[in-house]
Amino acid sequence: MESMEPGTVRPGGRTARVRTAVLQAAGDILAERGYSHLDLADIARRAGVGKTTVYRRWGTVTGLVADLLADMAEQSLPRTETGSLLGDLKANARLVQRTLADSRQGPLFKAVIAAATGEARTAEALRHFYDVRVDEWAPCVQQAIDRGEVPEGTDTHEVIRAVSAPLYYRLLAGGGRIDVAAADRAAEAAATAARAGVFLSEGRPR
Amino acid sequence: MESMEPGTVRPGGRTARVRTAVLQAAGDILAERGYSHLDLADIARRAGVGKTTVYRRWGTVTGLVADLLADMAEQSLPRTETGSLLGDLKANARLVQRTLADSRQGPLFKAVIAAATGEARTAEALRHFYDVRVDEWAPCVQQAIDRGEVPEGTDTHEVIRAVSAPLYYRLLAGGGRIDVAAADRAAEAAATAARAGVFLSEGRPR
Repeated sequence: MESMEPGTVRPGGRTARVRTAVLQAAGDILAERGYSHLDLADIARRAGVGKTTVYRRWGTVTGLVADLLADMAEQSLPRTETGSLLGDLKANARLVQRTLADSRQGPLFKAVIAAATGEARTAEALRHFYDVRVDEWAPCVQQAIDRGEVPEGTDTHEVIRAVSAPLYYRLLAGGGRIDVAAADRAAEAAATAARAGVFLSEGRPR
Repeated sequence: MESMEPGTVRPGGRTARVRTAVLQAAGDILAERGYSHLDLADIARRAGVGKTTVYRRWGTVTGLVADLLADMAEQSLPRTETGSLLGDLKANARLVQRTLADSRQGPLFKAVIAAATGEARTAEALRHFYDVRVDEWAPCVQQAIDRGEVPEGTDTHEVIRAVSAPLYYRLLAGGGRIDVAAADRAAEAAATAARAGVFLSEGRPR
């Protein structure tokens, strides 16, 4: 068997199939039972993969969760372009809403966020996941700047984070259902504040 | 020794002193080492209280964390009145900011939010804590409605949650420091969106 660094993967073939099965199993267990019940031997059994393969490739539960988050970042959907800032932010908000309201993905995100509170490596992998998502959507704010909808000097990434924040707040702190109305409101609030210049980069004239 | 329901407390005297010491010790351990390291015997030792007292009064770690959150809700500071919606929301945002950026309180909130993802009782206690905070601050939005700053029919509680959400998002998902600039921006975004009618209750005409 080939020797590999934990977390490295070669595309296609058996290696890719094993990774897919193992990450699927890890995600299922995280969603069903949370992070504290995650165990490499269980994951291997559920994935139908040899325990040795899982230990050799991922090393630890933390390493496996970091790889799961890297995979989620890779699978992140491309943004939708609607021609207006509000339309684009609503498309983004509804994507977040569908994810967090999903019966598998919602608990999975809760579990990963909980794990990240206690582990630096998971926190870093989670930040990377959000960076990839925010990088994907930030250009819709730049387009709004180019159209003159939003003032020059707006922090495009911060607008995208403002769309997600109220939905994550509902997931973790409560305050109501994560439904389409909540998503649309999050998008409207961010668009309205962006147009008014609230998200101008710090240090810029207001 | 008196028999008590877990979580019940009589004001003043030894009972109150024991509760204060135990909740302080539990909060310290949560902040330092996270929820998974919480153990009633450790807490009793650190609080200088008999183990039996702690087991009899709180029963489980979950029961103790629920009581800690109830105590945090009771200790919740009264709102500041500044005479304008933006001023009031900034005061609120800066209170949240100071709490989440605090070297003890920030990790404590992370730990409790993480615990709430896996336990219904902790989640309920956490929701109660936020309900108390939001109830305390929502009247500042009602005052803005009365002054004509914000449209009639605005969901006052949702405006307050919108102020907290970006700061909690930074705590849990990253995206930058939880500083005064982030607090002020959260308040400005919420105030701007509220004035524009984004937080009108669902089903109301827009």
